[in-house]
Amino acid sequence: MIRVRPDRVEEYVQLHSAVWPEVLEALRQAHMTNYSIYLHGDLLFSYVEYRGSDLTTDLASIADDPATKRWWSLTGPMQETLRAADDEDWWLPIGEVFHLE
Amino acid sequence: MIRVRPDRVEEYVQLHSAVWPEVLEALRQAHMTNYSIYLHGDLLFSYVEYRGSDLTTDLASIADDPATKRWWSLTGPMQETLRAADDEDWWLPIGEVFHLE
Repeated sequence: MIRVRPDRVEEYVQLHSAVWPEVLEALRQAHMTNYSIYLHGDLLFSYVEYRGSDLTTDLASIADDPATKRWWSLTGPMQETLRAADDEDWWLPIGEVFHLE
Repeated sequence: MIRVRPDRVEEYVQLHSAVWPEVLEALRQAHMTNYSIYLHGDLLFSYVEYRGSDLTTDLASIADDPATKRWWSLTGPMQETLRAADDEDWWLPIGEVFHLE
């Protein structure tokens, strides 16, 4: 979960309506599947299923991808983390209270 | 998305840690899969994949299930809808801004 700056919501939505193929490919290579982002007001909720076996390495490969770096240089300033300032990741994990396969 | 009354959050979480088998079965029979509920503060976010072909009938079968009715009689008063008061459903649908298969 993360916040979008209210004045950037429209731009964020527009950008995500056509995510760059290289960015999608970096996610696929890192075994990220069934990845959705939902918007309510200025709050974003993402849902993703990780199908790999080495999350640390896969996350590092995403972060090292040049297109993803450019993507994040655009999306980063649109967002405000809900986490503590010293956390490495921007998105706040939220707890699952129920799951049915 | 829906709100839990702040004084009922603990009870809601407790109840959902052991959902009744009949309630789970009614969901399965209605072709609801990969169903998760997440909690942030007093906000609940649910994610569910519908794998049937007649959503209206399947939703009606859930609503007609006796165990589900009892379940909703417990969970209903714990929740406050984010929708307009005259909407039939309690949960507020929120828009998807991104999806990767």
